[in-house]
Amino acid sequence: MPAALQRLAQILPADRLLTSAAELAAYESDGLTAFRTRPLAIAVPETQEEVIALVRLCHELQLHFVARGSGTSLSGGSLPVVGGIVITLNRLNRILKLDPDQRLAIVEPGVINSQVTTAATPHDLHYAPDPSSQSICTIGGNVAFNSGGAHCLKYGMTSNHVLGIKAVLATGEVVQFGGESRESIGPDACGLFTGNEGLFGIALEITLQLLPRAESFHTVLAGYQTLEQAGDAVSAVIAAGLLPGAMEIMDALALNAAKAAVHAEYPPGCEAVLIVELEGPRESVAIEKQSLEAILTASRPVEMRPARDAKERLAIWKGRKSAFSAVGRLSPDFIVQDGVVPRRRLGEALRRIDSMSKEAGIRVANVFHAGDGNLHPLILFNGREEGALERAEDLAGRILKMCVEMGGSITGEHGIGVEKREFLADMFNQYEIDAMLRLRAAFDPHGIANPGKMFPGKEAPSLSHHGLHPLEKAGIISRE
Amino acid sequence: MPAALQRLAQILPADRLLTSAAELAAYESDGLTAFRTRPLAIAVPETQEEVIALVRLCHELQLHFVARGSGTSLSGGSLPVVGGIVITLNRLNRILKLDPDQRLAIVEPGVINSQVTTAATPHDLHYAPDPSSQSICTIGGNVAFNSGGAHCLKYGMTSNHVLGIKAVLATGEVVQFGGESRESIGPDACGLFTGNEGLFGIALEITLQLLPRAESFHTVLAGYQTLEQAGDAVSAVIAAGLLPGAMEIMDALALNAAKAAVHAEYPPGCEAVLIVELEGPRESVAIEKQSLEAILTASRPVEMRPARDAKERLAIWKGRKSAFSAVGRLSPDFIVQDGVVPRRRLGEALRRIDSMSKEAGIRVANVFHAGDGNLHPLILFNGREEGALERAEDLAGRILKMCVEMGGSITGEHGIGVEKREFLADMFNQYEIDAMLRLRAAFDPHGIANPGKMFPGKEAPSLSHHGLHPLEKAGIISRE
Repeated sequence: MPAALQRLAQILPADRLLTSAAELAAYESDGLTAFRTRPLAIAVPETQEEVIALVRLCHELQLHFVARGSGTSLSGGSLPVVGGIVITLNRLNRILKLDPDQRLAIVEPGVINSQVTTAATPHDLHYAPDPSSQSICTIGGNVAFNSGGAHCLKYGMTSNHVLGIKAVLATGEVVQFGGESRESIGPDACGLFTGNEGLFGIALEITLQLLPRAESFHTVLAGYQTLEQAGDAVSAVIAAGLLPGAMEIMDALALNAAKAAVHAEYPPGCEAVLIVELEGPRESVAIEKQSLEAILTASRPVEMRPARDAKERLAIWKGRKSAFSAVGRLSPDFIVQDGVVPRRRLGEALRRIDSMSKEAGIRVANVFHAGDGNLHPLILFNGREEGALERAEDLAGRILKMCVEMGGSITGEHGIGVEKREFLADMFNQYEIDAMLRLRAAFDPHGIANPGKMFPGKEAPSLSHHGLHPLEKAGIISRE
Repeated sequence: MPAALQRLAQILPADRLLTSAAELAAYESDGLTAFRTRPLAIAVPETQEEVIALVRLCHELQLHFVARGSGTSLSGGSLPVVGGIVITLNRLNRILKLDPDQRLAIVEPGVINSQVTTAATPHDLHYAPDPSSQSICTIGGNVAFNSGGAHCLKYGMTSNHVLGIKAVLATGEVVQFGGESRESIGPDACGLFTGNEGLFGIALEITLQLLPRAESFHTVLAGYQTLEQAGDAVSAVIAAGLLPGAMEIMDALALNAAKAAVHAEYPPGCEAVLIVELEGPRESVAIEKQSLEAILTASRPVEMRPARDAKERLAIWKGRKSAFSAVGRLSPDFIVQDGVVPRRRLGEALRRIDSMSKEAGIRVANVFHAGDGNLHPLILFNGREEGALERAEDLAGRILKMCVEMGGSITGEHGIGVEKREFLADMFNQYEIDAMLRLRAAFDPHGIANPGKMFPGKEAPSLSHHGLHPLEKAGIISRE
């Protein structure tokens, strides 16, 4: 037994320190399904004290560690690409405080996103960020990746809802950044920690802002003959001064997938569907509904279907939220891409993706947060075909470069992780990357927290988007 | 001429490099009026290139620099307490872009806060953060101190409205953090930069989110027999699920000051006035107005005065916004304190401040953002009386410690600056302060940007709250 394991065994009992191949197998991949890795061990702490002790040991031994929640990262964020241990936080799943008067909740990192809203519902409050994986993903992971969701258009990302973070830094120091008040002192270290992708340390307690539940919703599904028409409708809604809770677009391929998966029904003859949801006080929704109807009618949809009741609203969202996994029915493998373009250039971006897709002869499904300009092209391929993954990754890369060129971003909400390291330099100059590395070093001087992520370069073998990954050559990771 | 001045003179013409005593005098104090300092020179750049050249020179020479906007800092944030040069940014006052479609503006740091809203008004948009000094303070200063304002209750602080920052770091590196989209990559460096109090570098371009102007406002002024009743009314409004744009309280002393200054009229026989402003779509304001009236009636005010038109609304706000400076009419000197308590403990906090005030025999006026629990006690004294400043500072310190004890904060929106350095350790443990110092070093390894601020300790002589300040003994600063 390696010395590191002996020391770990002093912190955790044997049944919570997993080392056998069978046990490790359950943790060897995450939402970025193309890669598998094997850590030294999986540590399963149950208390904050155990997490702190684990991190302090890692600091002492300069042992790499990766914190993991439910493993839903779509950028490989929870993969231990350079070895070390995985610290899984699912058992730190207590809601420590729920204060309806202050409108906040303090939760441990393993609490599931949707459980916060469930707990807040009796007080007519909710937790706004709603990633598609909200019924399974953890708040710790949401904080690490500054997760978004369909309702970010109105409410912003995770960082807009985190008031405070108690964390153990990679140095083993325990700190509290922010707190129960939005008024923070000095630089916003709490905001900085949100989005760190696990490179600074581990959040132990997260103070979340809760918002009053909207009194009323109005959800409309509009079908269009072209994707571009749907994109133009989004611009028209925003230009009219409406701020819907969500505006989502699904293209023909995504619609077919949702039909197959959850028997969703869409207007026939549509190449694209736009979902717009208004929310707010009953009276203002009633007024906004009229303007929305006028705007959408002017956008010449094939058909408009307003949800007539809560059941129809849920059915619309069920189709939308299932679309990602449903695309799996159309293709043995797919890459979920995540890029951002300025909202008004949405139509142009969709046209360009379409022509790149045709040019490459690779099918691309689009399901995305249109209101934010946050695209999620799903690039379909068959991993068993020689070179298919590489061709798909090449197309994914070209779509990202297009986003940067158009003044957008290489990630809206999935993060850099291991997937997009090599694209960081397309977005940031060397000064910016240097400053980020120095920031990282302020929290993790030895680079032991989730190494091999976010930054291109020396820290770990670089991730190639062509052919065999160096980590694969080294036998550290293997593809399915 | 010192060597540093010769090098500075290679960057700026003589008329924009001020060194004479008469010229320096105009910049020797800021909103924290108790202190005066004299820098080596005042640099008046007109372009971003000049700012970058100045910072690079400072980095090369390890020369201290302080960025200054309109000098409205209430914590001494723009005072060069350890010498060096002041870089004033008032001439970098261009609105570089105003994009109503994307709802954003890109501005230089010297742009005045209220000018952003003025520019956005033709598009029915506005910039939400509204410090009381908004007609004079600059966006650069707002970013440095993460400024708040009366409407933070609904809209959040400056950091909630900054999408991107182009900055020259203290190392001379030019970086862009964030951008036109809210979706950012990795740790939120843009959010971190907001609130840096000038310790990281200088913002050159700030991308601000603009919001649709509320369609309708409803402003009510309610007079109460006691301050506590007013505080309880605030809790009742929040508990009922209303989220007003602003909720402000003024006590008897503040009311007298506002009466004297701007001839504001308040219900007779009141010890406190609560201002509540609803805003939103016409229909929802109309509904909320009814609940508000019911809640306020139940809180048993002496009198309620809803503003009947825009003119009456402006008069209510004029009284409130003038209150700070108006208090100057009641007393030759005063200290504006800035602390936060949990909202539901507002009544208790006000009672304790009242008894501390009586015990010390020092008058304290209260004007504050009640909805946020953000207190602004104004501690009145006569600086010509022996020991009066020290006694006032002692009371100010005790109020801050009370805020910390009650689970609040030593600053809501004015920052630490030079004023509250010694209180930082009441809020943060050594690990937290160490992590912040490492963060600072990531941007400013030599500690040349606004040294002597925020952190207690070695970097500059520590600020004593009793007797002569070490910087005064050293002849670096002098009190009025």
